[in-house]
Amino acid sequence: MLIIGERINSSRTSIAQAISAQDVQFIQDEAKAQADAGADYIDVNAGTFIKDECEKLKWVADTVQAATDLPLCIDSPDPDVIRTLLERVEKTPMINSITLEPARLEGILPLVAEHGTKVIGLCQSESEMAESKDDKMRLAEQLVKHVTDAGVPLDDLYIDPLVYPLATNTESALATLSAIKGIMKEFPGVHTTCGLTNVSYGLPNRKLVNQTFLISAITQGLDSAIMDPTNKRLYGALKAALMVMGQDDFCMNYVGAFREERLE
Amino acid sequence: MLIIGERINSSRTSIAQAISAQDVQFIQDEAKAQADAGADYIDVNAGTFIKDECEKLKWVADTVQAATDLPLCIDSPDPDVIRTLLERVEKTPMINSITLEPARLEGILPLVAEHGTKVIGLCQSESEMAESKDDKMRLAEQLVKHVTDAGVPLDDLYIDPLVYPLATNTESALATLSAIKGIMKEFPGVHTTCGLTNVSYGLPNRKLVNQTFLISAITQGLDSAIMDPTNKRLYGALKAALMVMGQDDFCMNYVGAFREERLE
Repeated sequence: MLIIGERINSSRTSIAQAISAQDVQFIQDEAKAQADAGADYIDVNAGTFIKDECEKLKWVADTVQAATDLPLCIDSPDPDVIRTLLERVEKTPMINSITLEPARLEGILPLVAEHGTKVIGLCQSESEMAESKDDKMRLAEQLVKHVTDAGVPLDDLYIDPLVYPLATNTESALATLSAIKGIMKEFPGVHTTCGLTNVSYGLPNRKLVNQTFLISAITQGLDSAIMDPTNKRLYGALKAALMVMGQDDFCMNYVGAFREERLE
Repeated sequence: MLIIGERINSSRTSIAQAISAQDVQFIQDEAKAQADAGADYIDVNAGTFIKDECEKLKWVADTVQAATDLPLCIDSPDPDVIRTLLERVEKTPMINSITLEPARLEGILPLVAEHGTKVIGLCQSESEMAESKDDKMRLAEQLVKHVTDAGVPLDDLYIDPLVYPLATNTESALATLSAIKGIMKEFPGVHTTCGLTNVSYGLPNRKLVNQTFLISAITQGLDSAIMDPTNKRLYGALKAALMVMGQDDFCMNYVGAFREERLE
């Protein structure tokens, strides 16, 4: 289960403030906390700095890399930003993300191929927000085709079928869960990932909904998540779900996480 | 989702004491709490009173029925006890349970047919504790055949594939989850139910494991559970899982449970 730590994102007020103030300690604490909590990649996003996203993200990347050995997940829709960041990363990163929008696909996919990175592919096109399972599967198939044609191995592709708020569509989580299962079955070797928080938008007790969605997605084969690993409730659900699904020999990971007081 | 409230069971010390002392108030409070919390049936079990299970269970049944309108789930392996109880229930009850053990099957199934009750069928035979998915499916098929031959509609059968502790077998929960899915697919019209607490035996933070197992089972099609509906963490997981699986129009049940402070 590959965990992409999502906390260093300028859409969070505290992160935006720390980036503006060049608060090295704050950003490095965020990076270390996620590394200690079990992240495999540290996502870095400075997207709210529209005019100087690139400069800000360079600073964030340098700052994070000085604090942890983990690889980065470069989170930007802009091929130029990604190209610049690729020049200064110390470990092979993940790119977050391509979609089927031509500019983004044609701008970013060659960089993925050239640098041998992993890449997140969103089930989203210029014309379409895929809401049904069938729509998500159709876009996933197109992502697989583009990535394969570019010479990128399927093992480097993490398809995010996206999940929309349950509060606006009762079937939205089920569509995503069905797509996760379908993608893992139809395209052997590919991975699935998902952000978890959209699903609960507008509902009370969001942590319960996010946790339930994560467990449900793991039962369908999800093998990566974009999440906050320092959230003990979510992390506990992750460990328990992997154990329930037979992916934790002798329950050692679960019991280990309990001993480290990582479960809630 | 049919909830069988499991609290009134003499294997719990407080319940055994209340039965011994004929503490009407205590038993009725337990019944009412489960009814208020969303139980559909109130399980009644006096199995630890080996010599006078029948007398004790009659008292429990009368006591519970005086406190709530819910039907009972008569929980005994003894056909004579069940026959006696069937004579004094006010509403058509559920029987918990038949297995493939001949004495139990031949003694209880005719009572189920005669009285038109629902019945829980355990995937368990005289010779076998079914641990694998295939073993559970084979026993489920035999249960379906016996029940059908007895003229009991499949809609009245709740198959419990049983779950054994993860701490002793890493694959045990997965076997049960796969069996739930297989049973719901292979025998249209039948129901599945499950006790939830065995799975976490011997592990730390059992509530988290039970909750995760319940959510996982609902994703596989489980449509009944033998559980404590007053456990807010478990009940919250149930409501959230049904919503995530698209079974809660406009999220009304989930939001309603939140407003009633029933989620944790």
